[in-house]
Amino acid sequence: MTAIEWFDYTGVVVFAIAGVFSAAERRMDAFGALVLAYVTCLGGGTIRDVLLNQYPIFWMKDLSYLWIILITSLITFFLIRDVKKILPYLFIPDAVGLGIYTLIGIQKSAALGLPPEICVIMGVITAVGGGMIRDVLSNQPPLIFHNQEIYATACLAGGGLFFLLHRVGWNDQVIHISTVAFIFMIRLVSIRMNLKMPRVTADKGLKRK
Amino acid sequence: MTAIEWFDYTGVVVFAIAGVFSAAERRMDAFGALVLAYVTCLGGGTIRDVLLNQYPIFWMKDLSYLWIILITSLITFFLIRDVKKILPYLFIPDAVGLGIYTLIGIQKSAALGLPPEICVIMGVITAVGGGMIRDVLSNQPPLIFHNQEIYATACLAGGGLFFLLHRVGWNDQVIHISTVAFIFMIRLVSIRMNLKMPRVTADKGLKRK
Amino acid sequence: MTAIEWFDYTGVVVFAIAGVFSAAERRMDAFGALVLAYVTCLGGGTIRDVLLNQYPIFWMKDLSYLWIILITSLITFFLIRDVKKILPYLFIPDAVGLGIYTLIGIQKSAALGLPPEICVIMGVITAVGGGMIRDVLSNQPPLIFHNQEIYATACLAGGGLFFLLHRVGWNDQVIHISTVAFIFMIRLVSIRMNLKMPRVTADKGLKRK
Repeated sequence: MTAIEWFDYTGVVVFAIAGVFSAAERRMDAFGALVLAYVTCLGGGTIRDVLLNQYPIFWMKDLSYLWIILITSLITFFLIRDVKKILPYLFIPDAVGLGIYTLIGIQKSAALGLPPEICVIMGVITAVGGGMIRDVLSNQPPLIFHNQEIYATACLAGGGLFFLLHRVGWNDQVIHISTVAFIFMIRLVSIRMNLKMPRVTADKGLKRK
Repeated sequence: MTAIEWFDYTGVVVFAIAGVFSAAERRMDAFGALVLAYVTCLGGGTIRDVLLNQYPIFWMKDLSYLWIILITSLITFFLIRDVKKILPYLFIPDAVGLGIYTLIGIQKSAALGLPPEICVIMGVITAVGGGMIRDVLSNQPPLIFHNQEIYATACLAGGGLFFLLHRVGWNDQVIHISTVAFIFMIRLVSIRMNLKMPRVTADKGLKRK
Repeated sequence: MTAIEWFDYTGVVVFAIAGVFSAAERRMDAFGALVLAYVTCLGGGTIRDVLLNQYPIFWMKDLSYLWIILITSLITFFLIRDVKKILPYLFIPDAVGLGIYTLIGIQKSAALGLPPEICVIMGVITAVGGGMIRDVLSNQPPLIFHNQEIYATACLAGGGLFFLLHRVGWNDQVIHISTVAFIFMIRLVSIRMNLKMPRVTADKGLKRK
């Protein structure tokens, strides 16, 4: 198992837990909670693979995704009070996942010869698409459209760095590590320093609060 | 016309009626009601065909789907009070449709050589995906995430039976009939006996009510 | 640049502005506003290309879409009060866009040899799909399901005219101009004369108000 795979599966565990808690907050039944766990984990990559005409979709080729999500969800169902205690620390593996999924999305698109703009968009979709679908299925406006956090923006910045380093001529492995580390750092620094995206308002345009 | 086709089209009529009533409850206009009818009927199979990279989508090849939905919707528009009287009995053809669509989804995926886990997921998506999209387009949380009914779970169980009987070595036609009958029976028994899925809550995990 | 391309890009500018204002009304942050702008402009054509198994999606081939939307959104962010003043006049280029996108959707599908029914549906999806996704992502029921306006219906009528004129044997360019002009006229006449689609209600069926 490569380092990317290891981080990938860790991210899946964290995203599945987030999906189950999102369902629990809305008092969904066990089926709804399972769907939200799956959608949070697999939704972004699925949109990416559909847009890139990649068949089979990644989770059809590697069934471990399906099983990891199922087992994580069942454990969370039965040990929800214990899992709840680790929730405040999940922003760290979540930030790692954010970096890894952006990188995977960019790599898959770059391998198809697509231009950098498209690759970066695919990276962002891979990283944040699942959470968006989860929110839509929970009948909520997507959190990342409202919470003003530096989340998708971190992915965008990481995507920019990826292609910048490519042009500079760094070797691939260093670029990959740098991209993930950069997204991770932006995310953590923005949380620590409470950096916020501006809001858009119809009367004043961009506003800080 | 085969028995599967006959049941398929009957299911389409029932799902189209459900779509129009869903629109009527929210006082949508005639265009919105038509879209909900189409989406309820064709949404699940469309997601399946897109994920399986099947082109043309099933309703592009067999235009009778489009016409059956249009005619059913128009009749429902004009005779809505009469159609309303048969609503309490529609759970029976709805349960048949559930079984048939799960079977069709499984068959299509199995024909592509996909593993059983993926086939079962495609069966469930075919059967319940349309209703989910309809609820999202109606700005409602999907009913099947909240109502605790044995609905998608019946499809999952039917999918399990399908592959169990395959391994046992039964012949195809018997497997198909058994799968649909099994889903139908689970659905009806669960309604009759008021069987419920547990809820997931953030403080206590799984709860019966 | 052909006339169709020119109108296409103009439509993109108008749809992007509509997306940003939709976000501003809900006080979304800048990332949410950008996503809504992109989704309003590109959503319909993306659904169409995915359903038609067209890869690369149109905006992956012609990157000017991405840049026009970005620049329009940024200008709208910073000059929102000025842009607001032109909003009451945008229904005119919006009606042109409606016609153009319906035509593009029909043409793309007809070029694949699909039957007229499917082509018309693809035309409507191209024209109104983006606005629908935008509303879903804003946690709102799609406006065109509720507002009783002659909007998607104008696209349907235009699609009908397209194939009628084809059967009559007119030349292609005249058909294209007639289709767009017809949709544009229906839209403007229906606004001016306050023509409305009926509602569907569960107790009385179709109702004028």
